[in-house]
Amino acid sequence: MAQMLPPVNFGREYLQNRIATEFSLARHIGIVVDSADETGVVLRAPLAPNSNDKGTAFGGSLFALAVLTGWAWVARYLAAHELAADAVIQESTIRYLVPVKGEFRASLAAPSCAQIEKFRKMLQRAGRGRIRLRVDIHCGHALATHFEGVFAAAIR
Amino acid sequence: MAQMLPPVNFGREYLQNRIATEFSLARHIGIVVDSADETGVVLRAPLAPNSNDKGTAFGGSLFALAVLTGWAWVARYLAAHELAADAVIQESTIRYLVPVKGEFRASLAAPSCAQIEKFRKMLQRAGRGRIRLRVDIHCGHALATHFEGVFAAAIR
Repeated sequence: MAQMLPPVNFGREYLQNRIATEFSLARHIGIVVDSADETGVVLRAPLAPNSNDKGTAFGGSLFALAVLTGWAWVARYLAAHELAADAVIQESTIRYLVPVKGEFRASLAAPSCAQIEKFRKMLQRAGRGRIRLRVDIHCGHALATHFEGVFAAAIR
Repeated sequence: MAQMLPPVNFGREYLQNRIATEFSLARHIGIVVDSADETGVVLRAPLAPNSNDKGTAFGGSLFALAVLTGWAWVARYLAAHELAADAVIQESTIRYLVPVKGEFRASLAAPSCAQIEKFRKMLQRAGRGRIRLRVDIHCGHALATHFEGVFAAAIR
């Protein structure tokens, strides 16, 4: 009887593994991939390794979680569509709204179909594409940080 | 004979100590304060703990170095002027210009006297002040990253 292999869905475990192996700093931040599918990506991190002496999260850690959430969405999209491309952050803006005093969660809702389609066509026609992604970080129910970033991908 | 104490100049050692004790993540990034005085602040970090699997620096690490360089300038200014205030990042924009393939250095040139004076007056009159700071990151001679951030300070 042939062994049944589970389908590769490029979800939570796939991204957790890529983040752990590809980004040296990620394990020190304690990044956990909560969920990842067609509709969005959620990453979280604990406060302790990211705190400053006032017991609130370091702005650099919040940024790192947000940028990896955007990266994870692009990495998942590229893998799921068999596009052999690498993604990098090109520019971004972040606003810090309230201090973060506990575990924090970054969530990205998938861009519109039109934006995704434009990104895919640029990649296929020119070998390069760019897409703007928005990531919100919540601590409990409070919106703590708003991030927007332009990610660029290039076919290898 | 009375022991001579060295003058506290809130320079390199002062900031190195504060960054090491106040930010859990800083030691994992390997941040070193190169110089800090009236004219500016320079921080650097090695590639290895901040690399991704392509051997270039993670955008989150570059952001963390830049934001700590801005923070260091404000922290030094507040300490040197005996202002009992804490500084936090409020919003920032970062642009990634070229991949970073080695040690990277973040440098901040002091803002204009008029900007500093405005910041000081806001702090003294209202107990709160904001100042916009620019930080460039170089790798060798190449300008790799440009960062602008608004830092807010509030009297304790």
